[in-house]
This record gives sequence, structure tokens and C-alpha cells, in this order.
Amino acid sequence: MQTASKDTINPTINPTACVLVIGNELLSGQTQDENVLYLAKGLYEKGIDLVEVRFLRDVSDEIEAAVLEAHHRYSYIFTTGGIGPTHDDITVASIAKAFARPLGCALEAYHRMLQRHPNPQAPEALARMSVIPCGATLIPNTVSSAPGLHLHNVYIFAGVPRIMRAMFDTVAPSLKGGRPRHCREVIVQVVEALLAHDLESLQKAYPRTEIGSYPFGSDAKSYGVRVVIKGFVEEDVLTVEQRVQGLARSFEGAAK
Amino acid sequence: MQTASKDTINPTINPTACVLVIGNELLSGQTQDENVLYLAKGLYEKGIDLVEVRFLRDVSDEIEAAVLEAHHRYSYIFTTGGIGPTHDDITVASIAKAFARPLGCALEAYHRMLQRHPNPQAPEALARMSVIPCGATLIPNTVSSAPGLHLHNVYIFAGVPRIMRAMFDTVAPSLKGGRPRHCREVIVQVVEALLAHDLESLQKAYPRTEIGSYPFGSDAKSYGVRVVIKGFVEEDVLTVEQRVQGLARSFEGAAK
Repeated sequence: MQTASKDTINPTINPTACVLVIGNELLSGQTQDENVLYLAKGLYEKGIDLVEVRFLRDVSDEIEAAVLEAHHRYSYIFTTGGIGPTHDDITVASIAKAFARPLGCALEAYHRMLQRHPNPQAPEALARMSVIPCGATLIPNTVSSAPGLHLHNVYIFAGVPRIMRAMFDTVAPSLKGGRPRHCREVIVQVVEALLAHDLESLQKAYPRTEIGSYPFGSDAKSYGVRVVIKGFVEEDVLTVEQRVQGLARSFEGAAK
Repeated sequence: MQTASKDTINPTINPTACVLVIGNELLSGQTQDENVLYLAKGLYEKGIDLVEVRFLRDVSDEIEAAVLEAHHRYSYIFTTGGIGPTHDDITVASIAKAFARPLGCALEAYHRMLQRHPNPQAPEALARMSVIPCGATLIPNTVSSAPGLHLHNVYIFAGVPRIMRAMFDTVAPSLKGGRPRHCREVIVQVVEALLAHDLESLQKAYPRTEIGSYPFGSDAKSYGVRVVIKGFVEEDVLTVEQRVQGLARSFEGAAK
């Protein structure tokens, strides 16, 4: 919501973040992304404002450009995908190029993988996953022996959701959070159009909140609006919640 | 895959597209996007290359900037979300601003909504959804009486998945497609690392294909790699498919 977020909530008060979802399979409709929601929730809980998400192809120039742009613009960047052992995994090399860092073998990563796979049938694949940009640090995780990476303000995660989540869980405690927003949700059983005027008045009356209106369902039996109220000032959020609950009751009453 | 897509497949041979997913609820982790996959599949089938997807907040400046950038860079832009009747629906006004078009009431849209809702309880909400940028055309659809919009190379769709899909289905036949790629998929029951060397050799031997490797599962019982082979030259795609099927059989044999 433009008015509230730009004029009355200082958008720079919290650290910001960008997620780069990397992989041809997401852009050609072969795979449904399952990582953005988890990251968005986790960042929101820490008071880090996720400002942008981009899905990119496995094309080095495009990854490089997006990482550099985000590096200058946001507090944190999280990438998912493209860090496995195959030829189409080019995320790490592309990010090294973006920051002009040479690549080198991280022996610590290699030995950690060897511990889990003592007699690897494809040691060169393990070696490939141990090649990291000079100066990057490893992100161990509970699921996979291959690590994620951290360089500057960029966190490089796997694309496989279970591994991605474990990597985020590893770094989350070390991220500098901001002020989490208070958040309340009210379901109103009404067509969204009938709620529009009242919500707009409420938004104007309580500019320190951000009121979102999300219709769901579309058949005659099951439909309604999910109203989400967010803000740094708890009192205002709770007041708007009560007002919207009042609206919900009045529409229920009218329907009987 | 950088090498194949940049050096051997002319990336400009097909029309290109960008999807802008608009809504605070997606960036704060309250809603899972369900539209990108449908659009990505539909565009892929038409031979239109989806190059980028961006999730944006309901902030007018950010929507404006992203639309203009995409307008100059891609053949088609599709936006989802933010075209309803409430105060936080700012997509249409933001896009009008991006193209310096005044807003006006499209009587045709208003009357179409009146036909479906002859005695509207909130006529001002219907009127709000009839306000469109000067010169935009309406996108009727089979689900909702509120239309999508088309301006320049931008298609403005609803965020509710059922309505979004109906709007895309309306415009899809009119989109100028390109050469669809042939596509085959082979499941190989093996750890990805063991496949890496063979896939890289295949990729080098058949540069007119694009070989993607996507591991799935991570427990001991159910895991494997989904190998996706794409390309404009059917013969090459089928040859690589057979070779990967051969690999799959050899690994199955080894496991017995």
C-alpha cells in the first residue's frame, strides 16, 4: 500500500532483503518454487523487509548483473539453486565473477563431504562442490554435507527445499533483524467490493498501519476477504483489527 | 546452462517475456504464489522465452520502474495482482503513470459488471475497477466480470489464480509465439554426483541441446535425478534422451 508504507512507515527503518531464485526449470514451467515462502516468512519474523524476489535463468551474465545490483541496493541477498555438482550449476562461479574473486578449493568443505561419503564413487563431483570464491565462508547444514556459502552480503543456498531450509536455519540467528511488525488477520465473509469503502476509511484513519485486502474463493458458497493488518504500533494494529471484526459481524448479520 | 543457451542457441530467436508478481502478501510470506507456474508453462508451450520473474511490493514507484524496464527489454510483460476494488490495489494506476497515460472510466467495463451485478450494493467499487489508462483495451474472461487490461506490451491480470488463468487463456491465442523447444525428461535413480561427469560430456557432445539436472528426494529410499533435455533440433534431443536412458539402465543394473 503506497500511502502507508511510503509516507508514514519509514521504509528504511528495517534491514532489507532480496531473494534470487536461480534455475531454468522455474522459468520453463517445469518446477514450482517452494523456497520463497519459507524465506519470506523467516525474514518477516526477524523484521527484515523482503523488497524483491527475482527468478533468473542459469545464465552467468544475468546472475552476475542481478547479484551486483542487489548487493548495492539491499542489506541481504539470498540465492537459491545452482550449487550442485553438474555442468548446469553455475551460481557459485557467476557470483565469484560478479565480485572479481578467484575460485579455489575449500579443503574443509571437501573433507567434510569425504567424512559423509568415505569412498566416493565420483570424487571429482565432491571436489567441484568444494570450489568456492576466495574469501567466502561455508554454511554447514543438518541435511546435506555440501555447504552453502556466504560472501559479502550474499548467502548462497541450495535449490532443494529441505537443504535450502536447513541452510537458512543455520544463518538466521546471525542476521541482524529489525523491528518486527505486529500483524493481525480477520476473515470477512463478503464480496471484496462491499468492503472497499470501509477499508479505505480505516486506512486513512490509521496511517501507521498497513491494511491489505485479499479476496479468496469465487463460487457462491465459499468466498470472502482475508484482511491483514500490519504495523509497528501494536495499539493501532489491534484497534484496526477490532474495527474490521466489527465489519465482519455486521456483514454476517446482514446475511442472515 | 550458460554454454548451450548463450553460444549455440540464439537467445533472441524467440519472443521474450517477463512476469511481475505484485503484492505485499507474497513478500511477507503470507501467500504462496500460484500464478508463475501456469504462466511459465503457457509461455513455454508457445515458444515464448520467459526470461525473468519479479515479485514486487504494492509500492507505486517500484511497480512503475519495473514495468518500464521490462517494457524496453522484453517482448511481453504480464503482471498479476493489485487490480481489485480496494485501496491497496494500485497496479493499474502505477502502470498508467509509467506510460504517462491519464486514467479514465471505461464505460464498457462498468456496464459489463452491472450486467452481472444488476443492483450493486457498492457501485463505487465497480466504478473503481472500470478506471483504466487511456488507450488500454479490456481483457474479458470467463470467471470474473472485472476485466484485465492490455496496454503496449503489458498484460495486466488479476492475482486470484482462477481469474488470472482465465485472463491468460483469453489472450494466449493472440500472442505471437516462437519456435517451441522439444523437451524430454528421464528419471535416473542415482545420486546426482555420479551423473555429473556423463552429463557434462553429453552436453559438450550435443551443444544444440540444453541438459538440466534436478535432484529430488534426500532420504535413502527415494532419491534420484530428473534430467530434462531441451532444444530446437528434435533429433539431438531424442539422441540425448536415449543416451540418458542408457545411463539410467546402467545405474539400475549396478544397484542390483
